[in-house]
Amino acid sequence: MNGGELTALKLGGSVITDKADPETIDAAALDQATDAIAAHLGTGTDPNIDGSPAVDGGAGLVLVHGGGSFGHHHASEHGVSITEGTHDAAAAGAIHDAMGRLDRVVLDRLDERGVPALPVHPLSACARDDRGRLSLSTAAIEGMLAEGFVPLLHGGVLAQDGAGVTIVSGDELVVALAERLEADRVGLCSTVPGVLDSGDEVIERITSFEAASEHLEASESTDVTGGMGGKVRALLELDVPASIFDLDGLEEFLAGESPGTRIDSME
Amino acid sequence: MNGGELTALKLGGSVITDKADPETIDAAALDQATDAIAAHLGTGTDPNIDGSPAVDGGAGLVLVHGGGSFGHHHASEHGVSITEGTHDAAAAGAIHDAMGRLDRVVLDRLDERGVPALPVHPLSACARDDRGRLSLSTAAIEGMLAEGFVPLLHGGVLAQDGAGVTIVSGDELVVALAERLEADRVGLCSTVPGVLDSGDEVIERITSFEAASEHLEASESTDVTGGMGGKVRALLELDVPASIFDLDGLEEFLAGESPGTRIDSME
Repeated sequence: MNGGELTALKLGGSVITDKADPETIDAAALDQATDAIAAHLGTGTDPNIDGSPAVDGGAGLVLVHGGGSFGHHHASEHGVSITEGTHDAAAAGAIHDAMGRLDRVVLDRLDERGVPALPVHPLSACARDDRGRLSLSTAAIEGMLAEGFVPLLHGGVLAQDGAGVTIVSGDELVVALAERLEADRVGLCSTVPGVLDSGDEVIERITSFEAASEHLEASESTDVTGGMGGKVRALLELDVPASIFDLDGLEEFLAGESPGTRIDSME
Repeated sequence: MNGGELTALKLGGSVITDKADPETIDAAALDQATDAIAAHLGTGTDPNIDGSPAVDGGAGLVLVHGGGSFGHHHASEHGVSITEGTHDAAAAGAIHDAMGRLDRVVLDRLDERGVPALPVHPLSACARDDRGRLSLSTAAIEGMLAEGFVPLLHGGVLAQDGAGVTIVSGDELVVALAERLEADRVGLCSTVPGVLDSGDEVIERITSFEAASEHLEASESTDVTGGMGGKVRALLELDVPASIFDLDGLEEFLAGESPGTRIDSME
């Protein structure tokens, strides 16, 4: 590590893609997200710089994006989920490749703005044991961070003991990264401005699952990869504060503030 | 691990590509190599099987391929080598992507023959420290092997402390894999039928570098990633027997025999 602050940021798959159409980017949203990241890092301002040079002193940022309409389409076609696996290498490869196509677009948009992002694929760096526990190698990610690059991970597939190849969500990865890299802050950029109460107002702070459970149960089933309840539960287990916000809150979050809902167990 | 025998096999970049032309596959050679692997695993014989199902009881095989005319071209264009790095993420990405294109072709050829290969990229799973020591995460690879898949790695790029992004060769990877996975056998499928003596005859067995050094020094400078001398030196350091052979020896090697030159320090 570079000794500075480290932020782990996940861009939701539903934010950067159009979930209704298979393999369709939401170009305006992806532009807005990558603009905010470039502005935060102060890159992309010098037209004389060729390529996207690493950030001196370290960018202090690790990114994850979800699968959106790229991953889900192929995963459901092959009947693969977080718990249901496949032993068909071609099926696993098809899901992996679809995620790779989205990843390629995100990398290109970041590169255009001078953000020195490098790809890290979960299939190469992660696995799960037969109890579903994630093993995540951070050697490559820490190496990139130390050299001023921005590692970019994505929801995708991995080998799981006893199940073949299963899905790993971007949420699961960003939580594991924050934990293992001892990140200082975690942000989930979502399609909603935060965790909403029954009156559709953003809950400013959540310090325990119980306190917010009445609002979370309703959204529990909206996403195969865990929904808002799953996100909140996982973020509460972290030692570091996390925020859930939408695209309009991203700049504020990167500036060190707490837009949307702040999730902090205060332990 | 699956408890059975494990073989680590590297297909030389010069074997499966035409090194004189940028990004050109040697289709006949790649067919011959992947045919031999499929025959060994007994896959690809049932036309009713959809995709490439994992091998029951484990395939016991981990593959690496070199960069050949895909990697070297982009690496030299950007001045990147095993020791000279870049901090330009776009340059690193260009080399990584070129290797990814070769990897895609190798994966497709294996899939056509029912070999359940899954990709593992060094940029995602490896790094080097400032003394050039390789850190290689085997979590994903062991997970794949346990589920009957064939992990496919390739020479490529990785983050290196103090240097940015540098090259990692297929030779370096296959040696590291053999060591960390405690492989039973290592094979290097090369363009030559073995280590040649001054009369161009294959040396049947090498048990120390000194004994073969007069033949090895001549070839020392033929390859940026180490040449035959470097290969032999690294293989002698392994606890397991290794063989260097050409395409015509691949079937024999996979059948458990020792074609070409057998390298075994007898320690």
